[in-house]
Amino acid sequence: MAEQPYDLVVIGGGPAGYAAAIRAGQLGKRVACVEIERAGGTCLNWGCIPSKALLKAAETVESIQHASDFGVSVKDYKVDFTKVMGRSRSVSDKMAGGIEFLFKKNKVDYFLGCGHIPEKGKIEITSGPDKGKSLAAKNILVATGCRSRRLPGVEVDGERVMTSREALVMKRQPKSVAIIGAGAIGVEFAYFLNTLGTETHVVEMLDRIVPLEDKDISSALSRSFKKQGMKVRPGTSVENLRIGDKSVTMDLVKKDKKETLEVETVLLSIGVEPNTEGLLGGKLKLKTDKKGYIEVNDRYETSEKNIYAAGDIIGPPWLAHVATYEAVQAVNGMFGHGEPQRVTLFPGCTYCHPQIASVGMTEDKAREAGIDYRVGKFPFSASGKAVAINQPEGFVKLIQDAKHDEILGAHIIGNDATELITEYVLAMKAEITSDEIHATIHAHPTMSEALAEAAASTHNEAIHI
Amino acid sequence: MAEQPYDLVVIGGGPAGYAAAIRAGQLGKRVACVEIERAGGTCLNWGCIPSKALLKAAETVESIQHASDFGVSVKDYKVDFTKVMGRSRSVSDKMAGGIEFLFKKNKVDYFLGCGHIPEKGKIEITSGPDKGKSLAAKNILVATGCRSRRLPGVEVDGERVMTSREALVMKRQPKSVAIIGAGAIGVEFAYFLNTLGTETHVVEMLDRIVPLEDKDISSALSRSFKKQGMKVRPGTSVENLRIGDKSVTMDLVKKDKKETLEVETVLLSIGVEPNTEGLLGGKLKLKTDKKGYIEVNDRYETSEKNIYAAGDIIGPPWLAHVATYEAVQAVNGMFGHGEPQRVTLFPGCTYCHPQIASVGMTEDKAREAGIDYRVGKFPFSASGKAVAINQPEGFVKLIQDAKHDEILGAHIIGNDATELITEYVLAMKAEITSDEIHATIHAHPTMSEALAEAAASTHNEAIHI
Repeated sequence: MAEQPYDLVVIGGGPAGYAAAIRAGQLGKRVACVEIERAGGTCLNWGCIPSKALLKAAETVESIQHASDFGVSVKDYKVDFTKVMGRSRSVSDKMAGGIEFLFKKNKVDYFLGCGHIPEKGKIEITSGPDKGKSLAAKNILVATGCRSRRLPGVEVDGERVMTSREALVMKRQPKSVAIIGAGAIGVEFAYFLNTLGTETHVVEMLDRIVPLEDKDISSALSRSFKKQGMKVRPGTSVENLRIGDKSVTMDLVKKDKKETLEVETVLLSIGVEPNTEGLLGGKLKLKTDKKGYIEVNDRYETSEKNIYAAGDIIGPPWLAHVATYEAVQAVNGMFGHGEPQRVTLFPGCTYCHPQIASVGMTEDKAREAGIDYRVGKFPFSASGKAVAINQPEGFVKLIQDAKHDEILGAHIIGNDATELITEYVLAMKAEITSDEIHATIHAHPTMSEALAEAAASTHNEAIHI
Repeated sequence: MAEQPYDLVVIGGGPAGYAAAIRAGQLGKRVACVEIERAGGTCLNWGCIPSKALLKAAETVESIQHASDFGVSVKDYKVDFTKVMGRSRSVSDKMAGGIEFLFKKNKVDYFLGCGHIPEKGKIEITSGPDKGKSLAAKNILVATGCRSRRLPGVEVDGERVMTSREALVMKRQPKSVAIIGAGAIGVEFAYFLNTLGTETHVVEMLDRIVPLEDKDISSALSRSFKKQGMKVRPGTSVENLRIGDKSVTMDLVKKDKKETLEVETVLLSIGVEPNTEGLLGGKLKLKTDKKGYIEVNDRYETSEKNIYAAGDIIGPPWLAHVATYEAVQAVNGMFGHGEPQRVTLFPGCTYCHPQIASVGMTEDKAREAGIDYRVGKFPFSASGKAVAINQPEGFVKLIQDAKHDEILGAHIIGNDATELITEYVLAMKAEITSDEIHATIHAHPTMSEALAEAAASTHNEAIHI
């Protein structure tokens, strides 16, 4: 330890960790990043990025299946599942390499192994290629993220039972799958596998799929998934999972009805839990909440001075873009580059088809909060662009304060929803009213016109409905 | 003429005319619309909408051609050109029907035929099914639009020589085509025909294709078009067009070089000219500019009181969304519903692949204006989403005032550019700086992140480059 201590050592190389390290590098700080597996973390290696590569393959299949609608006939097509999965891995490889390049460019020292904080100001690497190395740091940022939650007593073997991580390196396409948990990850895999021809059961304990979204969104997705041939089973709990050699059998319990389902594979997408094992030395304690998420103050500082935390490890909403934002804010604050901001407003995106994107309050939340609200809505079936490209499914729904026209929430389901939501996020961030959105000229013909029309519809001024 | 006069009669049923009529209906006014051909006008019947249907067919073909990149092998595919064109027409049929439905819903009386204004306050229908009818009106809105410009002495026969209108009902796919004029319409047809296998020559008199766009955009599109196999010929004028039975021969003149090109078909996309024939009675005169576009004041009123004009007929930028906006503003102003706004800010979109979208100043314009500006740029090759979906081509370029961070212009080329631009348009409209865009959380992984990164890059704070 003859060397000068680092200004910052980041533990975790995911969207929080790598962004923090790069940002510190940009600010001219001496910085290191310790990553347990590979630069990019879960998002880039086991989450957002490789799953989008898979979904693009499914979209390609869908495009071929519907080619004749556009006058193109396809005699025969074949999905090479190994190649589909292989491309997804190679996209992760490429992006991980990109992060390593950015580390070099921004003079971030990169260590591979498990980062452990034996005491304040020190980091030891306790596994991996850099095992045994010890670093000194003026500041530490914990960005160790989360991992998929498992079911007690159910072994994840990657064949009969998978989490999203194992699903991203599936060796064979299952003939049938039960997806347990219909949040974003669950419905994305459901769309992917169903489109490729797997018999797909979507099982959700709560009373609707994508239960965090606005109720209208859940209904629309459910209708669409059923039309796509999936079995959608909300309000259903899974009991008595029996794992056999070639299949998994389970009881599906809905109110007082019970039925048995046998599938080749089960995919567990029932949420996440924090990665804190082996992080802290015996005497060091960071305050956490009941579920084990690290608590931070407005500057992202933990209960220990000079130890910060950001990203999934500080709790929901467990989104890569939120993690990155928090991490950059934490670093900016740490080094006196402006006052760090906590996250109040963020989009959520789900990349199945139809896509879902939302920001802010659902209608139920607005009602429960006793707000006098107004709803604006525009269906894509009335959009020239949507009809021209044969994507008339879905709608834009806007919740706004009836008094001040303030946008409280927005919910989109349909083609390109995940790109379209950005306009509303910016509007909410900048406190732009729906009138101003309506007064902004949207290009014709685009899907984005629907956002202006939904805004106009709150005052009954939409032209196309 | 025993009936009460209409509050408003609109001549023309395109994006300006139909929107004006519907808006007047929403305001409870007694309104009629006189359309010479079919509700929806050029945009919906002979422009934006049917062309997007064609482009979607080309995208489907492209998706099939690249399916193996994603692990999907296609044995054989065939493009049924008649079906491709037929679907495009049926989309127009459907949308035109939609406008007629909206007319009924908003109590707009709809007349079919050529609208003629013999004197102030009167409209006669001089052709078509409603020929001979006469209407009285307190206000008239002229929204007769434009038609494709032709070359003097060159007959447009729809086989050897077409404008976009004839191209939208092509009977056969030409083996080779010379597209004369590389603006938005020209390059869209170039992408469409080339993707379907037509030998495509893109000829532009000015020194670059899409000459209204930022120079970097022109270069990138040119590179991409060449990679797609097109012959791109900027700085080239066409002389001595010889129309034969089965082909067209022409001289292509570039500086002092001359070469001969023979193609099956020529598509003229060299701009538009105003539709004013037969519009006005002998004694009535509306002030026009040198090119024949009707001049209006800030309330869209022409030189004659109570005769208004909006849309393409009042001159550039000849965009459907601008036309609609103008028309709605004119009607709002006419009936005291707020102060009408003239258009100052609007996006321009081109739907070839890669797509192009822009708003505000090009870099050249900023330089010529002597503005102290800064450029932000982000390549899609550094975007996780773009790489995951194998669309790393293109970039986002932002021009901003160096002093106040005000966004002066934005230019996007790449996948989904036409949807992405909306965020920057809203930002410019609401005078949001690039810092605020950067501070807005963009969903990961989306193409839209590139807009935040380009904004961040103006202060060297982009994470992923």
